[in-house]
Amino acid sequence: MRRKTEPLKKAEVRNVCPRPAQRPIGIFDSGLGGLTVFKELRRLLPGENLIYFGDTARVPYGTKSPEAVVAFSREIAHFLFEKKIKLLVVACNTASSLALAAVRRDSPVPVMGVIAPGVEAALKAAPRGGRILVTGTAATVKSRAYSKALAAAHSGARVIEKACPLFVPLVEEGWCAKPLAAAVAREYLAPFRKRKIDALILGCTHYPLLKKVIAGVMGPRTRIVDSARVAALGAKAELAARGLLNPARRGRSEFIVSDAPEKFSSLAGRLLGIKTGKVAVKRF
Amino acid sequence: MRRKTEPLKKAEVRNVCPRPAQRPIGIFDSGLGGLTVFKELRRLLPGENLIYFGDTARVPYGTKSPEAVVAFSREIAHFLFEKKIKLLVVACNTASSLALAAVRRDSPVPVMGVIAPGVEAALKAAPRGGRILVTGTAATVKSRAYSKALAAAHSGARVIEKACPLFVPLVEEGWCAKPLAAAVAREYLAPFRKRKIDALILGCTHYPLLKKVIAGVMGPRTRIVDSARVAALGAKAELAARGLLNPARRGRSEFIVSDAPEKFSSLAGRLLGIKTGKVAVKRF
Repeated sequence: MRRKTEPLKKAEVRNVCPRPAQRPIGIFDSGLGGLTVFKELRRLLPGENLIYFGDTARVPYGTKSPEAVVAFSREIAHFLFEKKIKLLVVACNTASSLALAAVRRDSPVPVMGVIAPGVEAALKAAPRGGRILVTGTAATVKSRAYSKALAAAHSGARVIEKACPLFVPLVEEGWCAKPLAAAVAREYLAPFRKRKIDALILGCTHYPLLKKVIAGVMGPRTRIVDSARVAALGAKAELAARGLLNPARRGRSEFIVSDAPEKFSSLAGRLLGIKTGKVAVKRF
Repeated sequence: MRRKTEPLKKAEVRNVCPRPAQRPIGIFDSGLGGLTVFKELRRLLPGENLIYFGDTARVPYGTKSPEAVVAFSREIAHFLFEKKIKLLVVACNTASSLALAAVRRDSPVPVMGVIAPGVEAALKAAPRGGRILVTGTAATVKSRAYSKALAAAHSGARVIEKACPLFVPLVEEGWCAKPLAAAVAREYLAPFRKRKIDALILGCTHYPLLKKVIAGVMGPRTRIVDSARVAALGAKAELAARGLLNPARRGRSEFIVSDAPEKFSSLAGRLLGIKTGKVAVKRF
């Protein structure tokens, strides 16, 4: 593989892998939630080539066995490695929690999840012994992935976890700006308003779309940790540290799903304003 | 097995099958939604022995392949046949739509689903050429199971289908009586209020818990077809026609799930006021 520091002679350019910095970033999720990470990456790193894979045939991962989630994640990771990615972002909470180690073992490139960056940002926002509220799907909360990661940091933070199962369908209906969204958020979160929460982690890649609504319920005291945003910042830092940032002005975006490409494309446009163009299908 | 009404002589007890009428009714669903059918059966037929199976390890069925739903349904049906049931009620819309024929082929006893009774009741409520609104999960609506069954009746009814993905998590949160439930129902259904809907089918076994709220939004013009209720009425008629009604005063209830029995028991109590007692586990 070529390194950036050694410019290629013209004759060498043919039949050669693209320069490392020009290689794409691979991102995957069980469905379309990870597009919030894609969107932050696109915003932060306009020059990067991005490949997004959504495993829409097998969504959701939260209800699958850990063995299945590991097998699916490895399969997708290998598919993306073949596309010569320079970094892999696992933009799915369930896969980040269950499959990161297995994917890393196989990987020729750095692999990032969404949990560690969220935990790190929350710990920065909460003073020692402060309170952190983790929101997520029932499956994420049941897995205690965030609690365990927060506990491992020995910060003394008090962690509360709250499953918010209506948030995902609310986002997928495109109702984030309706008064109903605020009513649902109040139902889940108002009881925590008085408990002096320093940081609230949006522990599901759909939730950043409800960030304003959630911030409105929690009030200014609580820092809302947008795991999509912090994961994208983490990816940028990782690439910068390795000299792998792409200096191009405008990168390509490619979308691949395992089922129902039109539905994916239409939801990406409607919910996130992402114009996917043609979405490819790769079945496993 | 002992019968409450007629004590057996000791010599009779051994190797004797219960009389046909005393055999239980088997009911199954992918999870706990089918408990609405169980509850109606218990109310209508207090003397019957009921066995409920919830496939909580593999819920939801709506996102599975038809082959998987058929395989799961046959597996559960055989498990219930071994319990010497006299009637099988498939209290799951997805399984009713995809697996009824396969289960019937294997079955030594009559098998009922939830779709046909709902369709029949809706057609009775709608005049020729009237309007029927079918509500259900995204998977049920996508399957077009109700549309197809309604079209097959050649009634000339105009059928509209509407997926209401927030209803199931709303029910499972136990929020049916909150103003939020009415707000969600309005969001989905208010646009249909002006369209002179004669009958609205609650095409998901969770939805009967939102019946009042939905009726409130639709107004008195629209007959709400509670598929749990009509399925139970259908089961009663079927048993009566075969002389299989159990004349006992009070029947037994038995609950079996494939995963997480405590969670099932607690939700059954909280959402439906059903005291399950100990819930058994059968893993496939």
